[in-house]
Amino acid sequence: MFLLKATDHFSSGKLARLKMAKNTNIRISLPAVCFVWQIAMIILFGVFIRYNEESDTHWIEHRRRKNISTNSENDFYYRYPSFQDVHVMIFVGFGFLMTFLKRYSFGGVGFNFLIAAFGIQWALLMQGWFHSLDENDGKIKIGVENLINADFCVAGCLIAYGACLGKVSPVQLMVLTLFGVTLFAVEEYIILELLHAKDPGGSMVIHTFGAYYGLTISWVLYRPMLSQSKPLQGSVYHSDVFAMIGTLFLWLYWPSFNSAIADHGDGQHRAVINTYLALASSVLTTFAISSISQKHGKFDMVHIQNATLAGGVAMGTASEFMITPYGSLIVGFCSGIISTFGYLFLTPFMEKTLKIQDTCGIHNLHAMPGVIGGIVGAITAASASESVYGKEGLINTFDFKEAVANRTVNIQGGYQAAGLFVAIAFGLVGGALVGGILKLPIWGDPADANCFDDEVYWEVPEDEDENILSRQPNMNQTRDMPDAYQRSHV
Amino acid sequence: MFLLKATDHFSSGKLARLKMAKNTNIRISLPAVCFVWQIAMIILFGVFIRYNEESDTHWIEHRRRKNISTNSENDFYYRYPSFQDVHVMIFVGFGFLMTFLKRYSFGGVGFNFLIAAFGIQWALLMQGWFHSLDENDGKIKIGVENLINADFCVAGCLIAYGACLGKVSPVQLMVLTLFGVTLFAVEEYIILELLHAKDPGGSMVIHTFGAYYGLTISWVLYRPMLSQSKPLQGSVYHSDVFAMIGTLFLWLYWPSFNSAIADHGDGQHRAVINTYLALASSVLTTFAISSISQKHGKFDMVHIQNATLAGGVAMGTASEFMITPYGSLIVGFCSGIISTFGYLFLTPFMEKTLKIQDTCGIHNLHAMPGVIGGIVGAITAASASESVYGKEGLINTFDFKEAVANRTVNIQGGYQAAGLFVAIAFGLVGGALVGGILKLPIWGDPADANCFDDEVYWEVPEDEDENILSRQPNMNQTRDMPDAYQRSHV
Amino acid sequence: MFLLKATDHFSSGKLARLKMAKNTNIRISLPAVCFVWQIAMIILFGVFIRYNEESDTHWIEHRRRKNISTNSENDFYYRYPSFQDVHVMIFVGFGFLMTFLKRYSFGGVGFNFLIAAFGIQWALLMQGWFHSLDENDGKIKIGVENLINADFCVAGCLIAYGACLGKVSPVQLMVLTLFGVTLFAVEEYIILELLHAKDPGGSMVIHTFGAYYGLTISWVLYRPMLSQSKPLQGSVYHSDVFAMIGTLFLWLYWPSFNSAIADHGDGQHRAVINTYLALASSVLTTFAISSISQKHGKFDMVHIQNATLAGGVAMGTASEFMITPYGSLIVGFCSGIISTFGYLFLTPFMEKTLKIQDTCGIHNLHAMPGVIGGIVGAITAASASESVYGKEGLINTFDFKEAVANRTVNIQGGYQAAGLFVAIAFGLVGGALVGGILKLPIWGDPADANCFDDEVYWEVPEDEDENILSRQPNMNQTRDMPDAYQRSHV
Repeated sequence: MFLLKATDHFSSGKLARLKMAKNTNIRISLPAVCFVWQIAMIILFGVFIRYNEESDTHWIEHRRRKNISTNSENDFYYRYPSFQDVHVMIFVGFGFLMTFLKRYSFGGVGFNFLIAAFGIQWALLMQGWFHSLDENDGKIKIGVENLINADFCVAGCLIAYGACLGKVSPVQLMVLTLFGVTLFAVEEYIILELLHAKDPGGSMVIHTFGAYYGLTISWVLYRPMLSQSKPLQGSVYHSDVFAMIGTLFLWLYWPSFNSAIADHGDGQHRAVINTYLALASSVLTTFAISSISQKHGKFDMVHIQNATLAGGVAMGTASEFMITPYGSLIVGFCSGIISTFGYLFLTPFMEKTLKIQDTCGIHNLHAMPGVIGGIVGAITAASASESVYGKEGLINTFDFKEAVANRTVNIQGGYQAAGLFVAIAFGLVGGALVGGILKLPIWGDPADANCFDDEVYWEVPEDEDENILSRQPNMNQTRDMPDAYQRSHV
Repeated sequence: MFLLKATDHFSSGKLARLKMAKNTNIRISLPAVCFVWQIAMIILFGVFIRYNEESDTHWIEHRRRKNISTNSENDFYYRYPSFQDVHVMIFVGFGFLMTFLKRYSFGGVGFNFLIAAFGIQWALLMQGWFHSLDENDGKIKIGVENLINADFCVAGCLIAYGACLGKVSPVQLMVLTLFGVTLFAVEEYIILELLHAKDPGGSMVIHTFGAYYGLTISWVLYRPMLSQSKPLQGSVYHSDVFAMIGTLFLWLYWPSFNSAIADHGDGQHRAVINTYLALASSVLTTFAISSISQKHGKFDMVHIQNATLAGGVAMGTASEFMITPYGSLIVGFCSGIISTFGYLFLTPFMEKTLKIQDTCGIHNLHAMPGVIGGIVGAITAASASESVYGKEGLINTFDFKEAVANRTVNIQGGYQAAGLFVAIAFGLVGGALVGGILKLPIWGDPADANCFDDEVYWEVPEDEDENILSRQPNMNQTRDMPDAYQRSHV
Repeated sequence: MFLLKATDHFSSGKLARLKMAKNTNIRISLPAVCFVWQIAMIILFGVFIRYNEESDTHWIEHRRRKNISTNSENDFYYRYPSFQDVHVMIFVGFGFLMTFLKRYSFGGVGFNFLIAAFGIQWALLMQGWFHSLDENDGKIKIGVENLINADFCVAGCLIAYGACLGKVSPVQLMVLTLFGVTLFAVEEYIILELLHAKDPGGSMVIHTFGAYYGLTISWVLYRPMLSQSKPLQGSVYHSDVFAMIGTLFLWLYWPSFNSAIADHGDGQHRAVINTYLALASSVLTTFAISSISQKHGKFDMVHIQNATLAGGVAMGTASEFMITPYGSLIVGFCSGIISTFGYLFLTPFMEKTLKIQDTCGIHNLHAMPGVIGGIVGAITAASASESVYGKEGLINTFDFKEAVANRTVNIQGGYQAAGLFVAIAFGLVGGALVGGILKLPIWGDPADANCFDDEVYWEVPEDEDENILSRQPNMNQTRDMPDAYQRSHV
């Protein structure tokens, strides 16, 4: 009788869910978006994109012309190892960080894969038009640095996905990415080219923008009845271990992220050291705050998976500056604390009071540390001096050449701060606009009770656990069960 | 009573399995093969293998003789980052891609580990005799490029393993690898040296050969009663997430795979760009076809885990050519579609009609995209021109030097196509021969009902789930259960 | 009734555990250690640590002064790819290798993360004082090589953690790391600087020291009643697959570990080849011995996860030497066998007779192969000759310059052997001292019955399996259960 009652309970729950279900069938819309978009990409690449002089077969002539003595001077060898590390962060790092939910691991890692692959193509075009256009022939010339920048650009959208994880359809995610990449390219152009701010690891350009973009979208898409899917809003033991794969690959490759497009030589070298130290420091403070905040002093996996990374985010703008090793430790120290406190107090506050549902807590991991990074960058720039940097070093680090040859460090600090505001503004305004578009009832998003559930968009294998459950009441169906296990692999 | 009935069902199933069990005890055969072979390797390495001039302590003298100004000109620094990426693909990529089965994850990742470590040693010798023999002293001189090639060579056998996953014994796998590496080295010599075809990422040499080799073996070893192990022929939720680790590391390091042994400078640079784009494109079309093919528009993890990689396979031959960025997108576009359709229609057809049981669907992931890659390579080569490549660029890219100094691009295209046929022929004939050897009843392969089950070759820890199952009928045994949990770790 | 009985059994077990519980609340102690220590680090870094000439903005002036023609001569480009590989090994490799226990995966990967991030900061200082002190200004000047060495230094403590896995509190681990890093720096200074022994991959300095340090600590902390936690002392299916992530990343990046700080050019190149071969060889012998040792010839995951790595450990000292490729194979051959035999016979013997409880079997994976590595290094050094190395090659490989310009290879062999004894002595004596400190009843370690259980230090999500268990007897509580699932993510 106990068992029967349990069955009742479960099937009535299932019924309730089915009743409320929206139409989440994306069988037409998603393939349509993919095909139309991919064909558009092929046409636009055909019209606009070519190899640059370092990836073209004419490289050998270029070398002779420019008197480059060895192949090792090809930018490829300066940047390719960092590029690959960044690539791991985008696809494995971000992807697995989002597998922590008990029944949304497919969506976490799978949709991350889809929108990143989608976004990098559009990013090559958008960023190319702004940064790599050859004025002689109107073509975008790409090399390894463009690939890194495309990955960076997409990172902003993946951060935004973190706020929406489990609550949106893949079609919505593609729209989010399409506009996100576009906004990113414009914002980046304003901050890096017009304001001439420095931001090699993207504290402002990537993290601040991406986080506010995603939070605003999540605010527009507020779901008052989201508690209906509460049973799925947590992790299970092994999903937390999967998420640690994401955390660790993000954490340990972050020095490459912050140095990938830094200056050759001391620039990349210093960015690595600074980021390495900031990250180490934020691990310590994260564990400390996580323990002190719980009655029994136990650690919370949510903090460990996320706030340990805050030091990397906060070191994004100043990574190339002479912030000194102890300065980097201080940045990591503070950002680890602030990020963990965010998970403890701000996320619940934002959900209840501000009506912002932030699944992964990107406000704590990207928004606040990103803003810290921007401020640290502005202060560090403003306090730079020839005595510390050397005359040439100062010019090289801040690119005080050509149009900005006469800029002083104080003014540079001001422009850095201005860049931060541009990033926030683009995130807020862009998020509001795109959120409005995503609110249209045409995108196949799930009902409140079906959020955080892979069943909605994926063929999910029946687990043996579940079979155990279903097996007991009606045993006569057991014989056929094995067929239900099987997938179309063979 | 329900419970008792269930128990009956399960234990009768177990009985049935035991009855049919072949002798799968490999306690003598496997260690014997390992020891004999490893000792043979030591002897052969002792006779034949030495460091080359870049990895020998005489490097400093070599540098002076050749007027090489810096250590950074050592080939090590051009290729080591790519080598490590390829190494990750071989051991983590291929290994975890094969963990998708619910109860064959140990075998998937573990046997992949065994045969790869086994194969790379033999590959160093076989490839060394053909490519790196120093005629002065009859020794094979090895450096980092040989390590990459050994990894490549083994990749062919790991692909073949994909068709046989779960159905063969580790001893059979070692035989498969031993002959596979041997055939590979000969085939590679014919294609790359005699035909002078280009194939830096191995669309033909690695993927086409490996796939047809594995498929033919699987055809020879056809198991008509394989449906007896159907309950184990699918995935569970977490095994699908494990498989995504393999997919993503393969996907994101594929640019390194296709560029690892490409020409220094623009060659490696261009191969990375082309592969990056082809892969991105095939992700989009894979998701599209996967969704459109299911009634409710849901994605199938099998497609996402595999067909997303088709673009990398198909770009293997032409990766270094001036195929243009949009050309790469087109290649990825088509191969993603074809590969997904293969999973939907060809794999079931091949099993039913052609009697080819292809566990991982290597026909869709490696055979078809490999053939596409070979064809794309032939066409791209045939349509190369001095106006696009530049005079020197054309010579460098196709190595039109020495014996082939006068070859035209059209003739090169023909030789590329011939290379494809050689790869297919070696796969088919080699697979038939080796399949015949593997059919002998001495290798300890499992009975049909015991396929896809790690219990056959591994000490498998008893999971708590299973204990729940066994706990119910005879509760009096519960007290002793904890001992069953424990492993010999302490 | 069966079910009720089962419930009784389980709840009485729970009760028993609670009764015996020590006070494991670390809510004060752990945050205190973290904060005090991190602030101390910031102060000490402020006083002592600066960028070196290759990571400072004055690099451009330095280049001009030293006549360095290109940025690619910056040490960063020689070492950064290897550094990142080592970084993966430390955080993902060691971390995931320790996730094999069924209920200690959080602690395995999480505490590894904590103490590594903690230790690298202290290592930069300790190693800096000994190796990188600029005598002009009393500052430690750091670059990428210091980061690698800090990772190496911490590896010793992570090895020691392996012996104590599941039995100590995180506060104890931080104490272990604090003293471990200190001892390491002194021992390393004696071996590498005073004795002028070579040990690029740390067979002696890292593995032998770390293993004996951890084993001695474990011996001091012997727990006679550890069998009380036997139900948790094993793996489950998926935790074994997680551990393979650690194994594979350690295995495949080990060539980078042994070459990361080797000489530019042929030194790094040769170290990679030697390590690659030794590792391949030990995979074969591990599988062989694992199979032959079991009645049914089945493989044991414990062996595959660990002993396959023995070749890398044993090649740490001689990696740069002209040990020849077949010499490397022999080293891997023997160490794989010895390591697997260790798991089969030595670990149980050590636990029963010597009272050393070695959770991960570090004696088999690090101590014995490390000692082998030291001996191999001594022999290889003593048998080096000008005819094999070349005159310059011999001087470069052994750094026979300045104070040791007149040392012969025989004497070098003797000093290598002396280094091995120093490493063992530091491990034993240091471990005894630190073990004594850790025995104080103030560190919050778990009771014997609570070992290997993440519940003690982590907020563990309730798994659905467990709910199934608890659901059956008292069904009336089911309705509220979903709330228990949920975590503080939203």
